[in-house]
Amino acid sequence: MFVAAKIAYDGSKFYGFAKQQEYLSVIGFLEDVMQKLGIKTKVIGAGRTDKGVHATGQIIKFEIPNFWNLDRLLYLLNLKTYPMVLFKRIWEVAENFHPRFDAKRREYRYIFGSSKKNIYLHSYVSYEQYGDKEKIKEAMRMFIGKHDFALFSKSGSDAKTSVREIYKAYLYEHCIFQEEYLVACFQANGFLYAQIRMMMGAILAFSRGEFSLEDMRLQLLAKKRIYWIPSSPNGLYLTKIFY
Amino acid sequence: MFVAAKIAYDGSKFYGFAKQQEYLSVIGFLEDVMQKLGIKTKVIGAGRTDKGVHATGQIIKFEIPNFWNLDRLLYLLNLKTYPMVLFKRIWEVAENFHPRFDAKRREYRYIFGSSKKNIYLHSYVSYEQYGDKEKIKEAMRMFIGKHDFALFSKSGSDAKTSVREIYKAYLYEHCIFQEEYLVACFQANGFLYAQIRMMMGAILAFSRGEFSLEDMRLQLLAKKRIYWIPSSPNGLYLTKIFY
Repeated sequence: MFVAAKIAYDGSKFYGFAKQQEYLSVIGFLEDVMQKLGIKTKVIGAGRTDKGVHATGQIIKFEIPNFWNLDRLLYLLNLKTYPMVLFKRIWEVAENFHPRFDAKRREYRYIFGSSKKNIYLHSYVSYEQYGDKEKIKEAMRMFIGKHDFALFSKSGSDAKTSVREIYKAYLYEHCIFQEEYLVACFQANGFLYAQIRMMMGAILAFSRGEFSLEDMRLQLLAKKRIYWIPSSPNGLYLTKIFY
Repeated sequence: MFVAAKIAYDGSKFYGFAKQQEYLSVIGFLEDVMQKLGIKTKVIGAGRTDKGVHATGQIIKFEIPNFWNLDRLLYLLNLKTYPMVLFKRIWEVAENFHPRFDAKRREYRYIFGSSKKNIYLHSYVSYEQYGDKEKIKEAMRMFIGKHDFALFSKSGSDAKTSVREIYKAYLYEHCIFQEEYLVACFQANGFLYAQIRMMMGAILAFSRGEFSLEDMRLQLLAKKRIYWIPSSPNGLYLTKIFY
């Protein structure tokens, strides 16, 4: 029987989502846990998040023997994975379902603050200097639509094309432990390797007045690289996959 | 020159506040960092928090060469200690100031929730089953005043007497990441080893209906041990020292 699961994980506990030989990855951890439950399966996911990046809505697919009760499986998996990974829901899927290739839209949120740093949130938000909020919103709006994001990606991506379409990009305020944070939310048909961190790096540098919107547009037209420092992964969350 | 500092720390990164041979303690970590800055000193603190317990208002005292500028010291210490420890403020004190013996009052807060567990807050709040909030408040009120807390302490305390006076004990709601949490705040002239966790364990068990308030009063009169399971340290914070 093939099943999908919606999971959350603490990215600070792993060296990224994709399997690695030497370091603990989300996939490696989950395959190990399943093996301990007698389930030998490969796990595939919708989005390969980087080291330090979290997820609250990652979707994975794996295969289990038919005799398993899904409520029982959910319970046993959480016993072994919490608080590194939380299984929110498990349901049966067709054999040909693919969490990555079938995904129509992906959503990421980036939580950041620049005020007093909170040591308890260090791994879970990004602390970045930024300027006027209206400038952040203005820059974010520029990314909406279909663009070639080649210069907003780290090399190493195996994607065939660097054209992606961003459907939504908006900013809102969020209060944690009585301090104000900002959340930038992006929805797109897909994202390149490190794309959101590269975009956020440039957006916040623009808000600090380091270059003009016109300069950033040149980078979005893949004509000129203006800014190439990705922002910290600590505040980035894969929040939703749409099918 | 003798100085005091107000510090916060992430208790999940240490094996407690007090120095240990084999494991990383807050004191051991701070003395190491200071030595790297050329400051050979013993560090003493106001309260010896257990493994997993945090602080936002711990007070420490140490000695530095007279030539140090305190702003510069604050900056350099934070460079080396953040995000394990945050130095909030450093000021000069008299040689005979003692952060522990001179403290008149100590305040701890205990953050707990029983709803959906948040994996990112796992080390920073406690998840405990509890009953009616009014019952929690009723039980907390009973602890106010001067009592012999012998049966609300783990053995191992080197205190000469187990009598302590609690001045304040109150409960309030606190929202984190859109989920509701409760915070129990206690102020006393001092606390025994693990006293707050032992009290919280009993208070929450009472709120769940496991025994009567009268039973708990017998334990507070040091006559009968009713409940002895300390609650988790993850949600406990040393928040303030009064001099």
